[in-house]
Amino acid sequence: MHIDINSDMGESFGRWELGDDDALLSVVTSANVACGFHAGDPSVLRRTCEGAVARGVAIGAHVGYRDLAGFGRRFVDVPPSDLADDVVYQIGALDAFARIAGDRVRYVKPHGALYNAIVHHEEQAAAVVAAVRAYDPSLPVLGLPGSAWLRLAGDAGLRTVREAFADRAYTPEGTLVSRREPGAVLGDPDQVAARCLDIVEGRPIAAVDGSTVRIDADSLCVHGDSPGAVRMARAVADRLSGAGVRIAPFAAAAAA
Amino acid sequence: MHIDINSDMGESFGRWELGDDDALLSVVTSANVACGFHAGDPSVLRRTCEGAVARGVAIGAHVGYRDLAGFGRRFVDVPPSDLADDVVYQIGALDAFARIAGDRVRYVKPHGALYNAIVHHEEQAAAVVAAVRAYDPSLPVLGLPGSAWLRLAGDAGLRTVREAFADRAYTPEGTLVSRREPGAVLGDPDQVAARCLDIVEGRPIAAVDGSTVRIDADSLCVHGDSPGAVRMARAVADRLSGAGVRIAPFAAAAAA
Amino acid sequence: MHIDINSDMGESFGRWELGDDDALLSVVTSANVACGFHAGDPSVLRRTCEGAVARGVAIGAHVGYRDLAGFGRRFVDVPPSDLADDVVYQIGALDAFARIAGDRVRYVKPHGALYNAIVHHEEQAAAVVAAVRAYDPSLPVLGLPGSAWLRLAGDAGLRTVREAFADRAYTPEGTLVSRREPGAVLGDPDQVAARCLDIVEGRPIAAVDGSTVRIDADSLCVHGDSPGAVRMARAVADRLSGAGVRIAPFAAAAAA
Amino acid sequence: MHIDINSDMGESFGRWELGDDDALLSVVTSANVACGFHAGDPSVLRRTCEGAVARGVAIGAHVGYRDLAGFGRRFVDVPPSDLADDVVYQIGALDAFARIAGDRVRYVKPHGALYNAIVHHEEQAAAVVAAVRAYDPSLPVLGLPGSAWLRLAGDAGLRTVREAFADRAYTPEGTLVSRREPGAVLGDPDQVAARCLDIVEGRPIAAVDGSTVRIDADSLCVHGDSPGAVRMARAVADRLSGAGVRIAPFAAAAAA
Repeated sequence: MHIDINSDMGESFGRWELGDDDALLSVVTSANVACGFHAGDPSVLRRTCEGAVARGVAIGAHVGYRDLAGFGRRFVDVPPSDLADDVVYQIGALDAFARIAGDRVRYVKPHGALYNAIVHHEEQAAAVVAAVRAYDPSLPVLGLPGSAWLRLAGDAGLRTVREAFADRAYTPEGTLVSRREPGAVLGDPDQVAARCLDIVEGRPIAAVDGSTVRIDADSLCVHGDSPGAVRMARAVADRLSGAGVRIAPFAAAAAA
Repeated sequence: MHIDINSDMGESFGRWELGDDDALLSVVTSANVACGFHAGDPSVLRRTCEGAVARGVAIGAHVGYRDLAGFGRRFVDVPPSDLADDVVYQIGALDAFARIAGDRVRYVKPHGALYNAIVHHEEQAAAVVAAVRAYDPSLPVLGLPGSAWLRLAGDAGLRTVREAFADRAYTPEGTLVSRREPGAVLGDPDQVAARCLDIVEGRPIAAVDGSTVRIDADSLCVHGDSPGAVRMARAVADRLSGAGVRIAPFAAAAAA
Repeated sequence: MHIDINSDMGESFGRWELGDDDALLSVVTSANVACGFHAGDPSVLRRTCEGAVARGVAIGAHVGYRDLAGFGRRFVDVPPSDLADDVVYQIGALDAFARIAGDRVRYVKPHGALYNAIVHHEEQAAAVVAAVRAYDPSLPVLGLPGSAWLRLAGDAGLRTVREAFADRAYTPEGTLVSRREPGAVLGDPDQVAARCLDIVEGRPIAAVDGSTVRIDADSLCVHGDSPGAVRMARAVADRLSGAGVRIAPFAAAAAA
Repeated sequence: MHIDINSDMGESFGRWELGDDDALLSVVTSANVACGFHAGDPSVLRRTCEGAVARGVAIGAHVGYRDLAGFGRRFVDVPPSDLADDVVYQIGALDAFARIAGDRVRYVKPHGALYNAIVHHEEQAAAVVAAVRAYDPSLPVLGLPGSAWLRLAGDAGLRTVREAFADRAYTPEGTLVSRREPGAVLGDPDQVAARCLDIVEGRPIAAVDGSTVRIDADSLCVHGDSPGAVRMARAVADRLSGAGVRIAPFAAAAAA
């Protein structure tokens, strides 16, 4: 039994610091590294890649809309061809730092509003797929099970990796409860850790309406943008390890 | 007898178009492609790389300060470590498009105020050298003979390529006459073409004070941001070809 | 009989020039001046305001999404509160230059994708209305007849000004034919000028399907981003003047 | 006996938060509010102005270079005319929010590298002076005693306000010890508060070499970008108040 744990990183920018990347890098096995369009200046990219390689954490390109002011959390109706080029640019830039640090970009995960958009937005999903294929068709892509993004990526021959969200409530259909609904985000580390173990071991979890739902996942997404978030990430990792689950990147990473 | 001709390209951005890249690509053998920090959005990078590869023109990373509003023409006192990271980011981003187009980045040339700064600014020059070495120590670097940039690059084991400016007046010492001086920029295509042939064939040219000066160059820089500039570039290429000079990239390029 | 003619201006940015503002300023009576978010750097704003004041052309704030790379032509799902703040910021910045030039911002017109969005997007329309009211409730707003933007502005007590597009085809319902449809943009200056005179004099014009439609407008929008566009603008102004229509800004402007 | 206390504020941007503005606003009497070029998005500007007005704190335009990635801390060799326009743009944008909040911009203080540059850089200093004069010649300007900035501003008829730095060491000549020197920044709140009282009451303070130096100041600059900084600011204010010094803005502010 094994699972990957991924988290967003490299989200500082210039004078502004965000997240405790050092702490998170000791917990996760895959780092979704911002590439400069929604967060992450070049020096942040370098340091994050160096940190990831030092700990054997796989580097993923966390590609987003070009929107620093909105942190990539606002949908932008970018024409698909331009979006594909934006994604190639971001992967290439991050890959430079990953390679200098001794590894390379190992996967691609869209960020924020782009992540949400390509659950349903076929044209933008296809654009991101096309970008990854053009850059390196051997790169796996990480995303939401059932999304257009993973479906089109699979159709295009890319390896798809499904993720579950450790601290989010699910509907009976296995989709995420919107953050605007009450109870959408879970705050108790013990409960979250237990759910994660259920997911990994193939047991159904409680849906938001009290029914149960089974979530298939190859990776668990944890957050790290607050001290509480880091504690929760650690609780998840400890529970899984304690139960004999091996925590390992889904993508190969350079030896630490 | 052979020489390279280089020119700046990919300097459009979004809605704004600049330069006649198509025309220039039929004249030059090396394209200094903007990488997004002073000009060039990702779609411009892609199209420019595709055009260059289609014509067998070598792709160079035209790296600059992060300054769209100033087009990279304003000195920015970036700490050397940040500057090195900015340069790595730009090379990596461009290389992604170069590779997708079927080639790769073949050399690095600093742009604008960065180009001028590292003629003398040792720390920034060393930072750009460090960035190129870290990214790929086999990449040649293009610049002004006598600059700190070429000296430090040579010291670091990088291949250095010297360029002469086709349409600029020179001092008796072989440095460029400042654009603020009268007569700094030459406007007659025939005169410019003749000077270029003199340079290539090793003859001294007239300096601004009427004396003569010998300029050693491996590449001639021509401009392309106006119809007149493109005509001048063509006049230079035609004169050289007519005199039996082979015009070829100093760096290997993919077969067209 | 009188009408206003408006056009977009100040759309250059740094090294990149766009539009022939000088020529247009001799034709139009209202200048929609970009405010820096989709185009227009501060020096462009200053020069455009100086030019407008010198010719007695009314200065309008052409507010857009924060999207230089997309020229404000891509919908951005900005939360309404942030959008209102973005609009206030842009009006204030432009007003500084308008006042230094001896006038002030006389009206507000949304640009590009924001213009199109708030035809129907109630929340974003309300946000722009709120921004104008907060800044100066005496400022008129310019827009598409029938849009949520003009309706909500009117409800909020703002003076609304309806515009017609000189060179665009209309549906029988009086809405614009999408640019993606054939025949959406008219290219014959004589035909366009004749249509404009029909609109001003209250006669119906030909809709795209051959039926007729009456367009009520207080201002005619002409374009200026190509030599042909400037010629067409002049043709419209000449035809109207020749027919005895007085061309005058809908908003007061400082005496030239 | 009275003195002003000023501090930098509004330095968050989008997702990134910086400084404890709420706490600082209860201590200071003048708020140097970032205007969007080095920090501060429009919503941050609005909130900061609202907070300042609610507490009767005077709003100053903290104008900087256009350099989000460098937080305005890197010298940019902007041509003076462009710099003047950049400053006008920033003052105008901030003034919109100040007015909506019920007050207006009450003074101008350059930020970061621009602040440091115009201690000596005559052309850039003159450009900022010209911008303030053009916008509103009744606006006071805040800066370093002995700087070209204050000298040229005074020559131009602007009211000049001298500031001292609460937590910085001084040379015997009354200039700041560079941050790169040991002992440049003082960390003991009691010592800093005592020095501030000495400055306000006209007594010489200890210079970095053990000699004494007299600092004339109309305003004390305190920092707020860490919990310790806010505590120090409060210690200064408490010591001054306890000694009977009235802490009041040098510039008029709207009644709270």
